[in-house]
Amino acid sequence: MKSRVVPGRGATWPGVPVREYKDRPELFRDVTRRVLLGGGAPGAAEGDGLDFELRYFEVAPGGHSTLEHHRHPHAVVVITGRGEVRLGAERHEIEPFDAVYVAPGETHQFLASRGERLGFLCVVDRERDRPVPLAGGDEET
Amino acid sequence: MKSRVVPGRGATWPGVPVREYKDRPELFRDVTRRVLLGGGAPGAAEGDGLDFELRYFEVAPGGHSTLEHHRHPHAVVVITGRGEVRLGAERHEIEPFDAVYVAPGETHQFLASRGERLGFLCVVDRERDRPVPLAGGDEET
Repeated sequence: MKSRVVPGRGATWPGVPVREYKDRPELFRDVTRRVLLGGGAPGAAEGDGLDFELRYFEVAPGGHSTLEHHRHPHAVVVITGRGEVRLGAERHEIEPFDAVYVAPGETHQFLASRGERLGFLCVVDRERDRPVPLAGGDEET
Repeated sequence: MKSRVVPGRGATWPGVPVREYKDRPELFRDVTRRVLLGGGAPGAAEGDGLDFELRYFEVAPGGHSTLEHHRHPHAVVVITGRGEVRLGAERHEIEPFDAVYVAPGETHQFLASRGERLGFLCVVDRERDRPVPLAGGDEET
């Protein structure tokens, strides 16, 4: 494992592949993911020896992540744009520097619902369960 | 464990205590730390069930962290200001969105050496060894 700087320029990282998903509007829309450090990151050997993975997600204006729950918690920090997060029955406006803790089992969704993209770091335990999507994740519903 | 938003405003988090250190200029200077999520964070029960801790460090202009090494790796993302990081014999300029991986055992130091504060998120495994400081950490030496 070797130390490295992963250069970022305005919430893009030239050396890091962007994983785009084919939209499934009933579940998610206009979401990309980059693994910056940890398992699956470019240059990472043995998951960088970390017990977690550091990812960057970006939701384009009007898009949203899947409404879902899982047993593993999320640690999130917004670093660009603005939007909202659903946490159970609550909905909170979020913007840069806001941190979000998603507790185990909490139904949650990130929405770029305020006319801008929403970009956030999301850290998860390396060992984690698979998310369970819920119907009704579209923000229009 | 309960989900929550930790509101941030321009790299301050009103609900999160700032841990300031009395300077030991031979080791570090003008460094503050906040634990945003995970063990020790305000509102965190049982370390939020995370295998890691999410902290924010800020180095005031001209300041620097301790030159040190330890077995646990660091995952860092710069979110405000600019500065430099030492990684072994190398020195890299860093600014917002740059991610830094500090490998196990690597001697490293963060320096606000470019006329601005340097603020970065730093994620570490919850279980980790104690850092070993090195002499010569002052940027003037």
